[in-house]
Amino acid sequence: MNEDRQPVIILAEPQLGENIGAAARAMLNFGLTELRIAAPRDGWPNPAAQPLAAGAFEAGVKVTAFDSVEAACADLGYLVAATARPRGMEKPVTNAAGAVGWLHEAMAAKRVGVVFGNEAQGLSNDHVALCDAIVTYPVNKAFASLNLSQAVIVFAHAWGEAAGQEGRFEGTEAGVGEPASRDELIGMFEHFEAELERAGYFYPPDKTPLMTRNLRNAFIRGQWTSQEVRTFRGAVKALAIGRGKARILRED
Amino acid sequence: MNEDRQPVIILAEPQLGENIGAAARAMLNFGLTELRIAAPRDGWPNPAAQPLAAGAFEAGVKVTAFDSVEAACADLGYLVAATARPRGMEKPVTNAAGAVGWLHEAMAAKRVGVVFGNEAQGLSNDHVALCDAIVTYPVNKAFASLNLSQAVIVFAHAWGEAAGQEGRFEGTEAGVGEPASRDELIGMFEHFEAELERAGYFYPPDKTPLMTRNLRNAFIRGQWTSQEVRTFRGAVKALAIGRGKARILRED
Repeated sequence: MNEDRQPVIILAEPQLGENIGAAARAMLNFGLTELRIAAPRDGWPNPAAQPLAAGAFEAGVKVTAFDSVEAACADLGYLVAATARPRGMEKPVTNAAGAVGWLHEAMAAKRVGVVFGNEAQGLSNDHVALCDAIVTYPVNKAFASLNLSQAVIVFAHAWGEAAGQEGRFEGTEAGVGEPASRDELIGMFEHFEAELERAGYFYPPDKTPLMTRNLRNAFIRGQWTSQEVRTFRGAVKALAIGRGKARILRED
Repeated sequence: MNEDRQPVIILAEPQLGENIGAAARAMLNFGLTELRIAAPRDGWPNPAAQPLAAGAFEAGVKVTAFDSVEAACADLGYLVAATARPRGMEKPVTNAAGAVGWLHEAMAAKRVGVVFGNEAQGLSNDHVALCDAIVTYPVNKAFASLNLSQAVIVFAHAWGEAAGQEGRFEGTEAGVGEPASRDELIGMFEHFEAELERAGYFYPPDKTPLMTRNLRNAFIRGQWTSQEVRTFRGAVKALAIGRGKARILRED
């Protein structure tokens, strides 16, 4: 598998070898193969990791240990912090599917990673500060603490949903299946909304912000590809000009 | 939490108490509270479940043991089987987000559940046959076996993404946030495609099936609500008739 086409998974100061092994298994279940462990409490290698890895190390997960989170992230150009807690930081926040989109977008230019905190404290503020964005899960606030390997598999599954069974985005070269960039999505929204405005759709005008937000949210959830954005823009264009054209054709 | 507004999680013949405990923790992380264990190998209660549950039993997960999978499912009107293996059965297959939509739709009329197989064999054909639909994850075929509790949290997370932090769909009574039914989605597609056809969008005609399939796939992935379907149909209607109307308004 081509590791440059995948995010690195970084475990920040993990405590239990069992969780490292279970995280490796979870990664490989969805085709992710590069695991970095930063300052593991019990050192590395750690025999406690083996049983829960269920063969993942032998089957393809490469593990590298580092002295610190900073060292583990040194060569990565875009990092997402997995954390449940809002910290009043000025960072973009998204859900698992959204993080996959952002990582894939960034991956075109640099290596990327996702950082998970440890069993006792999660990620420290200093480690979150190293990251470009935050991924958070819609956890039950009354019982919010996920097992570390469970947090990893939720991300890995979202990666697999978008990237396919080998953990890679298929057809990236041809541009088919490539997630739309935020620019492309915004371009599509603005095009759609401009045509709706012209068609007199937004009424009463004070509801326009709410209506556009609801439409944008519905589209964003689908994690559209560039091709799908182009297809939909073609459809909007056809609808906006098509009625007249269809009438002209009929009158021919 | 209102259990009638959630799916039951059924573990079919689970082996390890540890996995039962970890599954309970995973469920409660996303607000799910009803766990049924069918013919657990080591009986129930099982002290091995306690440490990995991390307090989930005390905090709200209710566990009931049954003698068989059939007994555990007897009062449930709609069941989804979690299984990676295609078995040539005539059952609808979906991903985690899709299963949440189908369960929520069915939940309006009956109690629903998701059935997970055991650590050694997964679900038997007989147990899959009890179910109405199959949920499958896009696993790496070379390393396809998920830990049982990991399989549960992938579903639970998808449930939480759609249902919100208490594991319930908010505002169901008001119809806001309710997932669109398949009928509503098909109605929306047919409306959209009819207008595109009228606008001369489908060209050349032999590409129409591919173009409509691509558009439908893009929309389906977003798991739209009924409200969003209505909003989008309003937008299509406005675009289809709006140009002429806008011109008339300007000429006034």
